[in-house]
Amino acid sequence: MFRKILVANRGEIAVRIIRACRNLGIRSVAVYSKEDKNSLHVQLADQRVCIGEGPARNNYLNKEQIVTAALNIGADAIHPGFGFLSENAEFVRLCEENGLTFIGPGADVIDSMGNKSQARKTMMDAGVPVVPGTKEPVYDAETGFVQAEKIGFPVMIKASSGGGGKGMRVARDKEEFEFQFNMAQRESANAFGDDTMYIERFVENPRHVEIQIMADQHGNIAALGERDCSVQRNHQKLIEESPSPAISDKMRASMNKDAVLAAKAVGYTNAGTVEFILDPCGTYYFMEMNTRIQVEHGVTEMVTGTDLIVEQIRVAMGEPLSFSQKDVKIKGHAIECRINAEIPEKNFMPSPGIVKHMHLPAGNGVRVDTALYTGYKIPSEYDSMIAKVIVHAPTRDAALQKMRSALDEMVILGVETNLDFQYQIMRHPVFCDGKADTGFIERMMNLD
Amino acid sequence: MFRKILVANRGEIAVRIIRACRNLGIRSVAVYSKEDKNSLHVQLADQRVCIGEGPARNNYLNKEQIVTAALNIGADAIHPGFGFLSENAEFVRLCEENGLTFIGPGADVIDSMGNKSQARKTMMDAGVPVVPGTKEPVYDAETGFVQAEKIGFPVMIKASSGGGGKGMRVARDKEEFEFQFNMAQRESANAFGDDTMYIERFVENPRHVEIQIMADQHGNIAALGERDCSVQRNHQKLIEESPSPAISDKMRASMNKDAVLAAKAVGYTNAGTVEFILDPCGTYYFMEMNTRIQVEHGVTEMVTGTDLIVEQIRVAMGEPLSFSQKDVKIKGHAIECRINAEIPEKNFMPSPGIVKHMHLPAGNGVRVDTALYTGYKIPSEYDSMIAKVIVHAPTRDAALQKMRSALDEMVILGVETNLDFQYQIMRHPVFCDGKADTGFIERMMNLD
Repeated sequence: MFRKILVANRGEIAVRIIRACRNLGIRSVAVYSKEDKNSLHVQLADQRVCIGEGPARNNYLNKEQIVTAALNIGADAIHPGFGFLSENAEFVRLCEENGLTFIGPGADVIDSMGNKSQARKTMMDAGVPVVPGTKEPVYDAETGFVQAEKIGFPVMIKASSGGGGKGMRVARDKEEFEFQFNMAQRESANAFGDDTMYIERFVENPRHVEIQIMADQHGNIAALGERDCSVQRNHQKLIEESPSPAISDKMRASMNKDAVLAAKAVGYTNAGTVEFILDPCGTYYFMEMNTRIQVEHGVTEMVTGTDLIVEQIRVAMGEPLSFSQKDVKIKGHAIECRINAEIPEKNFMPSPGIVKHMHLPAGNGVRVDTALYTGYKIPSEYDSMIAKVIVHAPTRDAALQKMRSALDEMVILGVETNLDFQYQIMRHPVFCDGKADTGFIERMMNLD
Repeated sequence: MFRKILVANRGEIAVRIIRACRNLGIRSVAVYSKEDKNSLHVQLADQRVCIGEGPARNNYLNKEQIVTAALNIGADAIHPGFGFLSENAEFVRLCEENGLTFIGPGADVIDSMGNKSQARKTMMDAGVPVVPGTKEPVYDAETGFVQAEKIGFPVMIKASSGGGGKGMRVARDKEEFEFQFNMAQRESANAFGDDTMYIERFVENPRHVEIQIMADQHGNIAALGERDCSVQRNHQKLIEESPSPAISDKMRASMNKDAVLAAKAVGYTNAGTVEFILDPCGTYYFMEMNTRIQVEHGVTEMVTGTDLIVEQIRVAMGEPLSFSQKDVKIKGHAIECRINAEIPEKNFMPSPGIVKHMHLPAGNGVRVDTALYTGYKIPSEYDSMIAKVIVHAPTRDAALQKMRSALDEMVILGVETNLDFQYQIMRHPVFCDGKADTGFIERMMNLD
C-alpha cells in the first residue's frame, strides 16, 4: 500500500492525479517550477516541492531532480501523468534503482514500444495487423525502391528511431522516391544518430481509433473499448469520442482483441493505449502503443464508469484489476473537447495570460477537468491546453447537443481560447455526421 | 414539441432546468425578483422576465404574475422546479386554463396527495402499507382514545388537513392522550379551519427512505430505486444517498413495487417520490408522496445514469418513458451533501452575504449543482441552500471517501457555510456505519 505518491506533472492532469490519491486515502506531493508556484496542483497537494524554474527541461523533465525530491519527502511511488517523463525508460530505471515505484509499465516495455520499427515487428509476430511494409531494416534508396514497388505507391518512409514527425517523408510516386528516401535518411541520421529506415504503405487521411487497455501484474488484461481521435491539427488531437461513429460492433470486438494481443506480446502492465489507423475502406492497422495514461482517458471513464487513474495506482500496488473483460460495458456516448489558450485564426498561436473571469459548465453528465481559476496566470513555458470539457449522454446526438450547450455556457476572459473554434466543429455537418478523418481540420480551415 | 419553457424557480434548480432545456434544444425563460437580477439562472436563460421584488410571495409564489409572464413571452410550458409553486394545484389549474403545460402531474393528483388523510386512505385501499392507525375520521378525544388503545401507545395524533408540523402531537401514554388530542385538534381548527383528526402509531426516529418514480401519459411507470434521506435536522434533509445502507434487495424490490402501486392508484404522471418511513425492526410504511422533482434527484441520476429533468420535459410533451423498468440498473453508490449558507453552531442561522472567493471540487464522479459564482451576493430573502455536492463511486466506502475529498477541496469565502459540519458527518462512525436515523443529528449535536 502506497502512503505517499509524488505527482511528476502539472496542470489539470496533476490535479486529476492528486484527487485520485485523496480518493484512495494516499498522501500526494506536487512538484512545481517557480512559474507554477500559484498553480492549483500545488495548492491541492498535501505537500509540495519546487524543482527549478524556466522551461520544462529544467524541472518537469529533470529526472534526477524529481527522484531526489521523491526520496527526500519519503514518497513510495511516482505518477508521471502524460507527456514529460511518462514514456522515458531511463526515468523508470532511475525510479526502480532508487526503490520508487513508477506508476506505469516497466522500462523494457516502454523501450520496446518506443522503437517504432521494433514495435512494428513485435506486432506482426503477434498477429496484430500492421500497415503493409518492410519487415527488415532498409539502409539505402535502391533496396528501398524495390520494396516500395512491392508495397505500391504512395509510400511512407520512416526512421526506425523516429518520432515527432522527424525522418518521416511521403513518396507519392516512383519519380520522387529516391529524393524523399535520402532526405528522410539524412534527417534521421542528424536527429537520432541512426540511419535505419523502414517503408510502409501511405494511408492518406485515415481515421485515428485507439483502444484503452488496462493490465495488472497477475496476467489480467482488459480492453475498455475505443476512442475516436480523428479530429486533429498538426497531429495534435482536438476532440475525442467514444464509441467511434466509424466502426461496427464486429470491428470493435476485433480491435479490442488485437489490443489485448498487442499488450500480451510485450508483457504489458498498467494503463496503455493501442493506436490504430483506419483506412477509408474500413481496414485498420496498428500504429503505435502509448505506454501511459492519455489526455483523453476521461472519455473512456464516462462510458465505462471506471476510474483509470485509481486503477493505475491500484495495479501499481500489485492489486488485481477491479474489473474483468466481461464487466466492461460501454454505456451511452462521451465526447471531449480540449480547450487551449491559443488563437485559431493565427495558426493556433499560444495565448498565455491572466484569467480575469471564468465560468465553467457543469451538471448531469458534464465534467470539466482543469487547473484554471479566476486570477490564474497561464504561463508561456508549457503546453497551451487549459481545460478538457467532457460530456456523457445516451446517444451521440444527445452528446453533441450537450457539448454545444456546455461550450456555449463556458466563459474564459483574459486570454484567447479555441472555445469558438470547438463550437464550430460541434456544428459542422461533417463532424456531426461522424465523417471527420485526420484531414478534416485542414480541409475545414482551407475552406474558410 | 415545446419551443420555449418558462422556469418558475431560482438558484441551482433553475440553472439545472435551463441546462436541460439547452440539451433538448428548447429555449428557456428565467423569471426573477429584483434581488436576483444578477443571479446565474438569469444570465444563463435565453430570455428573462422580472416578476417583482422582496419576499417570495411577491414573485416566485405569485401565480398570476408568472402565468402572465409565460403568456407574454410565448412560452409553451412551465417547469416549477421544487418548493414555491411546484405542488400548488391552483397554479396547475391556472396554467391549464391558459393553455400552458405544467411540467408535473395533474392538479387533481396534487390535491389528492396534498390531503394527508385522504392519501393515507388511498394507499390503504391500493394495498400499500401505511402506519397502523384509524381509517375513519376522528372528531373527539373519547372515540380517539378507544382507537389509540387498539393501535397501542405511543401514538401520533394528526390533522387531516395538516402539514408543516401543525396539528400534530405525540401521545406517549394513556394519561396524556386527552390533553394532546385536544391541543392538536384546536391547532388544526385554528390553522386549517378543520378539526378532522386521525391517529397513527408513533414510529420514533425512523429512517426516511423514498422511491423515485417516473410515469408517462401512456400508462408506463418505472421505479428508479430508493434514496435514504435519514440525515435531517428539523425535518430538513441534509444528506441523501442511494442505495440505502439500511435495506435489503428484497425490501428494495418490495418498496419499488409499492411505489409503483401508489403512483398507479392516483393515475400519476411525470416525476414523483413516494416517501416511506422504516422502523428499527425493518418494517416500512407509506408516509407521503411528493408530486414534483426533488432536491436530491441527482443522487438517483448518478446511480441510474438517467436525466430526470430531461425525462420530465419529454413526458410532459407526451413522449413515452425513454426507459422501462427492466432497463433500470443501480450502479455503484451516490451521496449528496447539501451546502447551506448557515451557521451550524448558531442553530443553523442563515448567513447571507457576498461570495468573495470560491473553488469547487470536480473530476471523475463528482458533480456540483450550484448557482454560485465569485462575487455573487446570496440574498437573505430565500432558502439558504447554495450548492449540492454529489459523488458517485463503486461502493459506499469509496463514495464516502470521495465526498470527504470533495468537501475538503471545496472553498467558499465570504459567507459562513455548513461545509465543516457536513465533513464531520462524513467522518462520524454512526453515519459511516450506515446507522444514522432521523434522530441522528439531534443526538450528535447534544453530545458535542
